Amino acid sequence: MTSSPAPDTTGQIVTLAPLVALLAGDMAKVNEQIVARLVADVPLIPELAGHLIAAGGKRIRPMMTLAGARLGGGDDRAVGLATAVEFIHTATLLHDDVIDESALRRGRDTANALWGNEASVLVGDFLFARAFELMVEAGDIRVLGRLATASANITQGELKQLQTAGAPDTTADAYIDVITGKTAELFAAAAAAGAEIAGVTPAEVNAMQAYGMKLGLAFQVMDDAMDYAVSTDSMGKNAGDDFFDQKVTLPVILAWQDGTEDERGFWRRTMQDGQFTDGDLATAQTILTRHQAIDRAMQVASDYAAAAIAALDPIATADPARTTLIGALAAAARFAAARQN
Amino acid sequence: MTSSPAPDTTGQIVTLAPLVALLAGDMAKVNEQIVARLVADVPLIPELAGHLIAAGGKRIRPMMTLAGARLGGGDDRAVGLATAVEFIHTATLLHDDVIDESALRRGRDTANALWGNEASVLVGDFLFARAFELMVEAGDIRVLGRLATASANITQGELKQLQTAGAPDTTADAYIDVITGKTAELFAAAAAAGAEIAGVTPAEVNAMQAYGMKLGLAFQVMDDAMDYAVSTDSMGKNAGDDFFDQKVTLPVILAWQDGTEDERGFWRRTMQDGQFTDGDLATAQTILTRHQAIDRAMQVASDYAAAAIAALDPIATADPARTTLIGALAAAARFAAARQN
Repeated sequence: MTSSPAPDTTGQIVTLAPLVALLAGDMAKVNEQIVARLVADVPLIPELAGHLIAAGGKRIRPMMTLAGARLGGGDDRAVGLATAVEFIHTATLLHDDVIDESALRRGRDTANALWGNEASVLVGDFLFARAFELMVEAGDIRVLGRLATASANITQGELKQLQTAGAPDTTADAYIDVITGKTAELFAAAAAAGAEIAGVTPAEVNAMQAYGMKLGLAFQVMDDAMDYAVSTDSMGKNAGDDFFDQKVTLPVILAWQDGTEDERGFWRRTMQDGQFTDGDLATAQTILTRHQAIDRAMQVASDYAAAAIAALDPIATADPARTTLIGALAAAARFAAARQN
Repeated sequence: MTSSPAPDTTGQIVTLAPLVALLAGDMAKVNEQIVARLVADVPLIPELAGHLIAAGGKRIRPMMTLAGARLGGGDDRAVGLATAVEFIHTATLLHDDVIDESALRRGRDTANALWGNEASVLVGDFLFARAFELMVEAGDIRVLGRLATASANITQGELKQLQTAGAPDTTADAYIDVITGKTAELFAAAAAAGAEIAGVTPAEVNAMQAYGMKLGLAFQVMDDAMDYAVSTDSMGKNAGDDFFDQKVTLPVILAWQDGTEDERGFWRRTMQDGQFTDGDLATAQTILTRHQAIDRAMQVASDYAAAAIAALDPIATADPARTTLIGALAAAARFAAARQN
């Protein structure tokens, strides 16, 4: 959960720190808005949503919006849009935890575990509606359309994920399609929304959109790889969550493709049939290591990070402020694909 | 579920039929849009949502939008808005059924009973997002703001309902506050949205807003009264659902207020503590009848219907088409408060 610098083997900057520093003033306003706009008639809303939001997270999605707006020299309306983006994301987390019956998120009890599924469903709905109220206040209907479409695509990605659950023979393409919807589309729309409201050129809006998409893919592939690579303590969520939820992700897909019949039998018993016994997670990790499946998934994440950086090429950098911003976005992309996120 | 004429004791028209007839052409377009806009990458979305939507319902909410637009001579964009309104309503039904763990809705198995809670939560989210995409296409951000705020208020009403569940000493005011949020605000926003996009005067938009609000209250009070007044077959939902869900509605509130200590003990055991035994629903109905609580609740619904009709007064009726429309809206209001809805 730290964003401390961790230079990679090539000596490049691999950290969120420059982007965080660049956007610190705007993010402070977003954090104020998050608190202010959670206020409602029903005190349970700020209480429940606040529990999750206060637990932290890197707030990388609203930073996408603020960074996009910074391309156009900044725009006050981006603060409301960034708040909306964080609310949409929080709504999906609340609903995810209901769906997954998760008990732990960001190292804390989940809202559904504390307040029940009913409240988590409804507070998620509230956050989603409030997000659209914030977008209405920002007043740009094109931007609103981007985020509405991203929201529809998130649920389609989640539904596809439900449908590929328990199928270890899922293809890598199907997996990428799932995470494009459930994760990358919101990163892309968030980045493009900020750029668009700040009035940069359509080519630059598209560049930010492409950057957000690739960054989101890097981020999710890495997150899924880490689910097998770490212990519960350092992740702030349960290691092996995806495994026990029978959620088929890239490491398992790669290991299945290269697997022996014995190994495939193991994946069928666990991820397909949901028959788990003690030591299964350790066995899964052993099989994944045998096929270098976690490392190979991390390489896919790195490739997406490189593609994110390349997507920034069309953005004109005559202005030194822009050069700084582009550098910070590149470091953030490398960070998304780095082991310690 | 029929809208056959049922003249009341004063000989006034008490039916949805004139409004249905007046809006038949537009409603056909809405029904087409409902089918067309459910199409998605994931076939489960039209399948699951279509199951609920195909079961019928009176579609009175989208009719509010179309009627509002008709005040301004009609507007093609109202079809998309009306579709959005029905999608928002359907999303709330899907989430309600998850929350209530209902097995029956409109006389059919609920979506959550057939496809599971996960899919119902996600398809509800999809419909909500798709509704906003439809509103973006309609292109009027003020109207979008009305429906976003109504959506936020729906969830607040539902949360308040969760919090008053099991409390038979809930006040009538608290009950009205709950149903204002969970039901009436969407009727109000739907009616106002149609009027506003069709460009009628602000006073007329406000009149439609007030009409929708009072109509929604009449509709919900009557629906809640009927939950104790009818058998499962004629309602298409389980009689006594609210009772067994410990959802405190107006008949119980009125009977509690006038109740003996014995009766209050009964309400405490059942609605507060959730300790049910055979024959409890019949006992509840006997107590409610003793205090004329169902009839008195129905009278409250009638009063709201009268207020809905009065709210139409500021609308100019020089134009005969408008006179016809106002007459149809008045008949619909009486219908909302009539026993056979």
